Amino acid sequence: MSDTERASAPDHASGGQARVRPAPSQWGPYLEAALGFRNHWYPALYGAELEEADVSGGLGEPVSNVRSVVMLGERLLLRRIEGRVYSVHDQCLHKGVPFSKKPECYTKGTLSCWYHGFTYDFRTGRLKNIITDPGSPLIGRLALKTYPVEERKGLVFVYIGDGEPTPLADDVPAGFLDDALTVVPDGWSKEVACNWRLGAENGFDPAHAYMHRNSPLVRGFRVPTVLGDTGLGKGHGMEIINPDRKLPGPCGVRLLRGHGQPIWEVEVDAGVRLAARYLPDAPGVMQGMVPEVGIWMPGALRVDPFPAPHIVHFEWYVPVSERTHRYFITWGSMCEDAAAKEAFLDEVKYLWREFVPRYFNNEDMFAREAMDEFYSAENGWSREHLFGPDVVVTAWRRLCSRTHRGIQKRAPRPG
Amino acid sequence: MSDTERASAPDHASGGQARVRPAPSQWGPYLEAALGFRNHWYPALYGAELEEADVSGGLGEPVSNVRSVVMLGERLLLRRIEGRVYSVHDQCLHKGVPFSKKPECYTKGTLSCWYHGFTYDFRTGRLKNIITDPGSPLIGRLALKTYPVEERKGLVFVYIGDGEPTPLADDVPAGFLDDALTVVPDGWSKEVACNWRLGAENGFDPAHAYMHRNSPLVRGFRVPTVLGDTGLGKGHGMEIINPDRKLPGPCGVRLLRGHGQPIWEVEVDAGVRLAARYLPDAPGVMQGMVPEVGIWMPGALRVDPFPAPHIVHFEWYVPVSERTHRYFITWGSMCEDAAAKEAFLDEVKYLWREFVPRYFNNEDMFAREAMDEFYSAENGWSREHLFGPDVVVTAWRRLCSRTHRGIQKRAPRPG
Amino acid sequence: MSDTERASAPDHASGGQARVRPAPSQWGPYLEAALGFRNHWYPALYGAELEEADVSGGLGEPVSNVRSVVMLGERLLLRRIEGRVYSVHDQCLHKGVPFSKKPECYTKGTLSCWYHGFTYDFRTGRLKNIITDPGSPLIGRLALKTYPVEERKGLVFVYIGDGEPTPLADDVPAGFLDDALTVVPDGWSKEVACNWRLGAENGFDPAHAYMHRNSPLVRGFRVPTVLGDTGLGKGHGMEIINPDRKLPGPCGVRLLRGHGQPIWEVEVDAGVRLAARYLPDAPGVMQGMVPEVGIWMPGALRVDPFPAPHIVHFEWYVPVSERTHRYFITWGSMCEDAAAKEAFLDEVKYLWREFVPRYFNNEDMFAREAMDEFYSAENGWSREHLFGPDVVVTAWRRLCSRTHRGIQKRAPRPG
Repeated sequence: MSDTERASAPDHASGGQARVRPAPSQWGPYLEAALGFRNHWYPALYGAELEEADVSGGLGEPVSNVRSVVMLGERLLLRRIEGRVYSVHDQCLHKGVPFSKKPECYTKGTLSCWYHGFTYDFRTGRLKNIITDPGSPLIGRLALKTYPVEERKGLVFVYIGDGEPTPLADDVPAGFLDDALTVVPDGWSKEVACNWRLGAENGFDPAHAYMHRNSPLVRGFRVPTVLGDTGLGKGHGMEIINPDRKLPGPCGVRLLRGHGQPIWEVEVDAGVRLAARYLPDAPGVMQGMVPEVGIWMPGALRVDPFPAPHIVHFEWYVPVSERTHRYFITWGSMCEDAAAKEAFLDEVKYLWREFVPRYFNNEDMFAREAMDEFYSAENGWSREHLFGPDVVVTAWRRLCSRTHRGIQKRAPRPG
Repeated sequence: MSDTERASAPDHASGGQARVRPAPSQWGPYLEAALGFRNHWYPALYGAELEEADVSGGLGEPVSNVRSVVMLGERLLLRRIEGRVYSVHDQCLHKGVPFSKKPECYTKGTLSCWYHGFTYDFRTGRLKNIITDPGSPLIGRLALKTYPVEERKGLVFVYIGDGEPTPLADDVPAGFLDDALTVVPDGWSKEVACNWRLGAENGFDPAHAYMHRNSPLVRGFRVPTVLGDTGLGKGHGMEIINPDRKLPGPCGVRLLRGHGQPIWEVEVDAGVRLAARYLPDAPGVMQGMVPEVGIWMPGALRVDPFPAPHIVHFEWYVPVSERTHRYFITWGSMCEDAAAKEAFLDEVKYLWREFVPRYFNNEDMFAREAMDEFYSAENGWSREHLFGPDVVVTAWRRLCSRTHRGIQKRAPRPG
Repeated sequence: MSDTERASAPDHASGGQARVRPAPSQWGPYLEAALGFRNHWYPALYGAELEEADVSGGLGEPVSNVRSVVMLGERLLLRRIEGRVYSVHDQCLHKGVPFSKKPECYTKGTLSCWYHGFTYDFRTGRLKNIITDPGSPLIGRLALKTYPVEERKGLVFVYIGDGEPTPLADDVPAGFLDDALTVVPDGWSKEVACNWRLGAENGFDPAHAYMHRNSPLVRGFRVPTVLGDTGLGKGHGMEIINPDRKLPGPCGVRLLRGHGQPIWEVEVDAGVRLAARYLPDAPGVMQGMVPEVGIWMPGALRVDPFPAPHIVHFEWYVPVSERTHRYFITWGSMCEDAAAKEAFLDEVKYLWREFVPRYFNNEDMFAREAMDEFYSAENGWSREHLFGPDVVVTAWRRLCSRTHRGIQKRAPRPG
């Protein structure tokens, strides 16, 4: 079996005998991963959201340039020191208060707890001093958990895991780190009230095009949008990349452009027909918008092109709690020169960054939140009824189950 | 033992040795029925709240004429098609989203899921089509749970249960379906923050007249209202109808008019006397307002007459969740001709429908919500101390325990 | 071992081998006491908050002069009758409704339930009458739980426990009941969103002076405030009073004035120094403000002097629920004559009663609430890392564990 396998659609085939019920035993680890997978890289925020560190006044007034985020159930504090971002667990070792309630930093490289003055090295996490007990034998003997950080393409990635981090390049969509790809310095993000897996499955789902058929993006830009896409996963159309993580680089599931059978018109009921709003051969419609979509461990989407023929769209679904995730969207483009790059950055800044989430992905967020009660509280994982196009979703579930590096436990407790 | 037994007040007798603590073992099924009894009919809404079905525009804009309700923990969707009301489970079989989040219907008789276009026959629940995969083998093989519906006397009743429904006439108060009884087409309803059993027990409780002694209804209409009513259940005054469900027709407990010992005046403490606000023989008071009260499986009250001598008052306590119920109140009258009927409908519409819930039953809702913490969270069912008049409440608990057709389980999962 | 022991700092010594992790096994009962300790006296409210009883109108209009409080998870009702305060459980024995939802009292000495007229003697709790069933055999046979009450120094103390109450003097800070101490008739109180133990530990913590270094009180009155205080608990500086409750009188831990090693200036990091805002020998600073601090079972603090040299400051941390406590602050002074007394009462009324909680103890409430998630939901009691000054906190935990009279159970059920 090669590392790039062609999926053979073992369940939910559109022809022959359909399996009505899912086969959860095939993706057991995925079902356990309500808080995501441990020992992977996730975006925490955009680099533009974190300015260079400032320093408290002499008596410890709060500083503003630290950021607190919750990822996979853990609270992290981030700070940019001499240009580079560092991260520690946002909880004092003494009595567990979050530093972020009132962050104090007497120097660029230290973090002092507002309660008793426990002072840590922000880069190493080491307890350097205790203002209220400078001779304490604890000094030098305790350390906060630190998180590896890499800032790439405008995103600050954090490794939520133990020990030496794996390469970041193994945890982002193929092509994302390419030097030739210009990515905007500050994309969009929002917390969504549903489990991260519903975010990922919604984003990658080829049939959910149906729910976007009336979106402002489709109408405003006259984008030919299929009602659905069938026939994927039947020996063609779907590619599993690095399915057992035997090679370096990312693991993903990719839908090959144009291999499905697009549905442009349907007879919904006897005599009642429904057609896509804009057909691809209609006059005046946007051309070149048949995207290739891929999903990548540990939960990132790449859509090429979208929302315009020269733009690549990226999404991340980062677990926050079991019933919330942070949704990141950012955009890249292959720009030939500085002028093209400037034009692309302007275009995203003044058009897409607001338009796309508000008038297109808002529909996805609506759908995800509508699923959450069923999956998170009503045992939906064993009650769902999958259909043909879901073969790409189950391929993703199996990929996760084979290639993850650990299950994040509920209520993790660093230290 | 005849099917109409005279209660012999086995506990809580007003004379002799009182039993201070309840005997929960005598009404075990009732204690289990936090979500109500399965395989019974309950009102879902008023027929006037559901107009004839409309149809989505060609691209599936939402329709307005469906209604979503939660009953006994289940989510139902209702729609009126060619005049008749139908109901299906409000949850798509595919990924569990509620249809009601954005209801789409391309025809009067179908329901399409807004997410992937799963399209069901609203009358049979059968999956008729999938817009995003029209050749899916699932079509014709899956079906939503449907709920039997009967619309009578202005109320839309739904059978929450399995298999063939029992007759509606067995689940409404005696007399409610009489042809000669005019019932208003649209009564009143509201969700109340307490378990349904506390609603039922409050409504039927003969001693809670005390709490209404100052209500606007008593004052505004000068209604002689007793402080309490004792002596019931001692071989007379209380009748158990169809106690073992051996006969067709409803099962209930009825208090016979005038058999209790009304309390008009009491010495509360030495030298401190309390009298009812209006005594029955006082000048100018309303006459003919000694009501007969009965409670009927699976949770409906009939008070005849109330709030006026020619009106019969009906209430239902429909379980929603374990700590909420929907409270319905509607009114009927025996009208001799069209003019009397019109006058009655006007009277309810312009006077009683607003006045009674706001100025009388508001006190009952206050009392029910005040009990809920004790019974739902503090094990009140085994800590309560019942007294004489509660013999009618325990008769009801025993009747439920003997005649119910099933216990609704927590978090029921149709399909 | 004498009844006044000198602590020998068995753990967390500032020199030698530090114990990084706590030793929870040494204070097991304290860890169980999320709802506080049973069979102790706690303040319920200020006497000034409870005027002499009034009486319902003839038909039972609600009365205003009763007060409802929740303490240690129990609901209490309080009423002042002929000058003296009484307390009963705020829950009718019949169906568990709180009397306080609509308190009715036909006489000064009785309490009637608004629902069915169960009428109790407020002093004894005995069921005296039932308005809706005056001949009920329950009358005289049931009783509400009553709570012993003592009103001293402006506070209404209630004994939450069983059987004969212990002396109040054993459950207040030493000196609080002294005849020569004038205490204001109405202090301050507020509910705080954290467990009561975090309140007590925050109040007694000698190192948390650090967090007050910028408070308006320090600045406005130029109070020399240390950054921290070390060296306590090493054979001097800390006194355990009545450590095994072998003697009458209160049990407490007291920090002796001036025995610690105050920290006025610290080198936080290389070359970065932090000094207290006002040093004790600076010109114009307030003198005489080195306080002696003690904490007393079952959770009261005495700080002498504070907030001014002639004032003694008292705090109580009364458990409400597992994650809330009521925080009381009141003030006393040794006044030589009536003029001094009047001046002191005015000073507190027009200055300290508003200023101290708003501009100083607000910081403590902030800190307590910031700890609650860690200790109440994340197993903080076994994850905290204590340091030198916490020897006084662990002395308190051990004292509680040795001298308490019972653990309050979750969801206690009087009767």
